[in-house]
Amino acid sequence: MAFDRLIEKIIEKQNPTVAGLDPKLGYIPAHILEKAEAEFGKTLDAAAAALLEYNKGLIDALCDVVPAVKPQAAYYEQYGWQGMRTLAETVRYAKEKGMFVILDGKRNDIGATMEAYAAAHLGKTEVFGEAVESFGADALTVNGYLGTDGIKPLLSACAAGDKGIFVLAKTSNPSSGELQDLRLETGRTVYEEMAYRCEQWGEDQRGKWGYSAVGAVVGATYPAQLRELREKAPHTFFLVPGYGAQGGGAADVAPAFDGNGLGAVVNSSRAILCAWQKEDAPGEEYAAAARREALRMRDALRDAVGEMRG
Amino acid sequence: MAFDRLIEKIIEKQNPTVAGLDPKLGYIPAHILEKAEAEFGKTLDAAAAALLEYNKGLIDALCDVVPAVKPQAAYYEQYGWQGMRTLAETVRYAKEKGMFVILDGKRNDIGATMEAYAAAHLGKTEVFGEAVESFGADALTVNGYLGTDGIKPLLSACAAGDKGIFVLAKTSNPSSGELQDLRLETGRTVYEEMAYRCEQWGEDQRGKWGYSAVGAVVGATYPAQLRELREKAPHTFFLVPGYGAQGGGAADVAPAFDGNGLGAVVNSSRAILCAWQKEDAPGEEYAAAARREALRMRDALRDAVGEMRG
Repeated sequence: MAFDRLIEKIIEKQNPTVAGLDPKLGYIPAHILEKAEAEFGKTLDAAAAALLEYNKGLIDALCDVVPAVKPQAAYYEQYGWQGMRTLAETVRYAKEKGMFVILDGKRNDIGATMEAYAAAHLGKTEVFGEAVESFGADALTVNGYLGTDGIKPLLSACAAGDKGIFVLAKTSNPSSGELQDLRLETGRTVYEEMAYRCEQWGEDQRGKWGYSAVGAVVGATYPAQLRELREKAPHTFFLVPGYGAQGGGAADVAPAFDGNGLGAVVNSSRAILCAWQKEDAPGEEYAAAARREALRMRDALRDAVGEMRG
Repeated sequence: MAFDRLIEKIIEKQNPTVAGLDPKLGYIPAHILEKAEAEFGKTLDAAAAALLEYNKGLIDALCDVVPAVKPQAAYYEQYGWQGMRTLAETVRYAKEKGMFVILDGKRNDIGATMEAYAAAHLGKTEVFGEAVESFGADALTVNGYLGTDGIKPLLSACAAGDKGIFVLAKTSNPSSGELQDLRLETGRTVYEEMAYRCEQWGEDQRGKWGYSAVGAVVGATYPAQLRELREKAPHTFFLVPGYGAQGGGAADVAPAFDGNGLGAVVNSSRAILCAWQKEDAPGEEYAAAARREALRMRDALRDAVGEMRG
């Protein structure tokens, strides 16, 4: 079970952090940008090359202290297919360095189309009789608005390839409540309904610590809902965005964890990526600054959550 | 207003069809596959080359009778970044041929990230001080589960670049009702709530025929909901998937249209793409067979909907 692999890394490093790799050229130090522009000009190829070098430096600096990375597909897509090539290369590099890779794509569609997304990100695509891995993440974030049809192909990919998914339940953004907090006739909220579905979708694929291959996204910015859903969805592993730049702190995310200090992985993107800018450090130190911020986050989470026990 | 441009093409061709470009190697005739494999081997590059040649043939055969194409991102993503390169080239080619391009990505995320998706698909990305178009569609399908934050960056891109979006309301798949049909405390269903949001999000960007830049996806497989939402969301242009292979017919989609025969565009993917297989035609005739199917669909819609009047 994919999240067993993630949990093992979390216990080993005593760190339930995932570093979000959401790169923009504006976050990247001048020495990397200048090299890329000199080689490729003012082009998407140059942007993609700069993103890749920046990501590799971050992965090298983080891989012994952070168990997982979460590249956000949008940031690569905005740099065209060249950016998507960097995404594929980033996933491969992070896996080579022993990291668990969560692709944040929030993909969603009807069943036949979801098979294509499952092949793209969690499985393999048949190409002239050969099975080829296109992007190859360990887990994918998905949107469950279309119901079970849109989830089933992912469940097959999870079972076949030891992969996981995170379904959006309660997202970290200010307007997440507009739809997600609406109360249904049944008395449940929409986000609660989604968490119950996660419990159902995952019931045949539970791992060593009781968590299934179907996780949920629940934002650090909503600690009361984190606590509520931790109780109501005890087999659902949480991906918790919204820590750091979006305003969530270590105390806010503590309710996402169970009595063994397990059950969630907390994402920070900008606070780690842009630590060198925040520290006013020279650009050459961007990776060292990211590592310092990741260690601060690890320690803060460790203090708030306690020991992660296997 | 982007949908004015689409409506003009619909009126000119008297055809409210969008041809879904959801290619898989299994749909592509042998002569194209063999050429690609001979040049690039059993690789993603070969797959991407075959997809592009296939798409260009379809676009050439359809562009004078069909106003729009809808490439589905998943089918390109499954062939890796090479597939995404074919997606970008397909969008460019279809626009050159005068077609309106709806990218079916169902993208969704929090505001900061949605800016990146908006740049990727509807706007431009800043690259070393230059504004570069990465994919360049006319409209993008999106999921509104995250609320207004996730829609606002798209509204800005629509206003700045004469673009449109389609927000998922009632999707065409069998399990769409699991969440979308649930009734809220207020008495509204979730899909109805989403359609009302579309009316609100679009109210500042209405065009010549009263339709805004914020459309909605409503499936051909649910004619009662099409009729209901056409009444309740009179300024919301509909993208109607599910015609043909998924089971919707011309009579089913008729309620999506207003008294002028406007207000919706109906998608067919497999029935057009695979017409040559269904007709048992030689592979060399795949584009001609697609055109024959598109003309049958145009005539069936024209019979059911009546004249499209400007």
